[in-house]
Amino acid sequence: MLREIKVYRDLMGANDEWAGRTRELLAAKGVALFNLIGSPGAGKTALLEALGARWRPKPAWAVLEGDVETTRDAERLQRLDIPVSQLLTGGACHLEAKLVHHALKDLDLDALELVFVENVGNLVCPAEFDIGERAKIAVLSVTEGEDKALKYPLLFREAQAAVLTKTDLLPHLNYRLESCLEALAQVNAQLPVFQVSAATGSGLEPLTGWIADRLRETKAPSSAQARDR
Amino acid sequence: MLREIKVYRDLMGANDEWAGRTRELLAAKGVALFNLIGSPGAGKTALLEALGARWRPKPAWAVLEGDVETTRDAERLQRLDIPVSQLLTGGACHLEAKLVHHALKDLDLDALELVFVENVGNLVCPAEFDIGERAKIAVLSVTEGEDKALKYPLLFREAQAAVLTKTDLLPHLNYRLESCLEALAQVNAQLPVFQVSAATGSGLEPLTGWIADRLRETKAPSSAQARDR
Repeated sequence: MLREIKVYRDLMGANDEWAGRTRELLAAKGVALFNLIGSPGAGKTALLEALGARWRPKPAWAVLEGDVETTRDAERLQRLDIPVSQLLTGGACHLEAKLVHHALKDLDLDALELVFVENVGNLVCPAEFDIGERAKIAVLSVTEGEDKALKYPLLFREAQAAVLTKTDLLPHLNYRLESCLEALAQVNAQLPVFQVSAATGSGLEPLTGWIADRLRETKAPSSAQARDR
Repeated sequence: MLREIKVYRDLMGANDEWAGRTRELLAAKGVALFNLIGSPGAGKTALLEALGARWRPKPAWAVLEGDVETTRDAERLQRLDIPVSQLLTGGACHLEAKLVHHALKDLDLDALELVFVENVGNLVCPAEFDIGERAKIAVLSVTEGEDKALKYPLLFREAQAAVLTKTDLLPHLNYRLESCLEALAQVNAQLPVFQVSAATGSGLEPLTGWIADRLRETKAPSSAQARDR
């Protein structure tokens, strides 16, 4: 009897092809896509809620919410009038580029400057998948401990910014902020780290400033490239 | 030109074969294996530290620490004289049964009653992989929010117990404990939930009692089965 053989196409190759199409589409429209990645409960949705409530003047934005099941996070954002679509992976632990591409094509990209993708809560797998983003943003809460960058380094190597969330809880934790920052620098010395509290709004401004700089580059890529030289 | 085709064997089938071998081996030795699964920073290692420090009389135990990279968690346990081996997945987001099997065979199983596997920090993928455990134990911290059982239901459906950690932080959080317990019950009405604080030791006793009951069943499987009838 023949042994059962499963055959897959080159899934990663297909993913990168869709990511490439997304990058072209967004470049043509001058829209920046940010891929928020962090553990379950790291505070990704709360960060988006805080940006929705406090960012002024806010660029024209939309959110794509990635989840294994349920539309709970999308409903949270909808309550704040943030334009949001829900991407359900049906059990998969990360978003793939094809699903993101189709969801983006349903948005009115001509009216947008910025799209956040909130990836499935997972510090490992989503970092491996390009979805055509301008930048991956790592979201890490202080309640997860100081050493996560060392233990799950891929995301922090790939990310162009890190957001350290729930800083309002620091007085109640046995937490050495210095150790966390050292771990992040050890994995990626170029990584800007934004310390924020979605609960109090503290620290949001440097983060929105960084995002606004990326938006200006996206709208005028040639001049940004010229400046980088 | 031929399109590149990647061919895999039935990986899940091979995993289940190794899990079956582990189950046979541990049944023959009367050793219970518990698979601790939770997000990065959910407090799995801290729970093991607290058990090491406070569980009296403690069964003869060992820990297998699963991580993507680094031996940091194993070192934490070694400092407390907890017998520990480190399993590195080399980037993979979960432990597979074969690696666990080989690590178990290197332990002196005749001298042990209990082995904990601390899986890679991940609320999604490890739940899909049988490693030959007696039970999966879901570890969820109160800082992750109330709705995680609904958003990541597979683990909580598969688990035979849940440990809700970091309860000492409840006074500082905007957290409805009732909502979390309702979400857990909605996903798995039979799931016992143990509320613990590794920092204070609060709530460990009901958990160790539950584990001790499972150990008694493992040592005398026929009588436990008779009792269940």
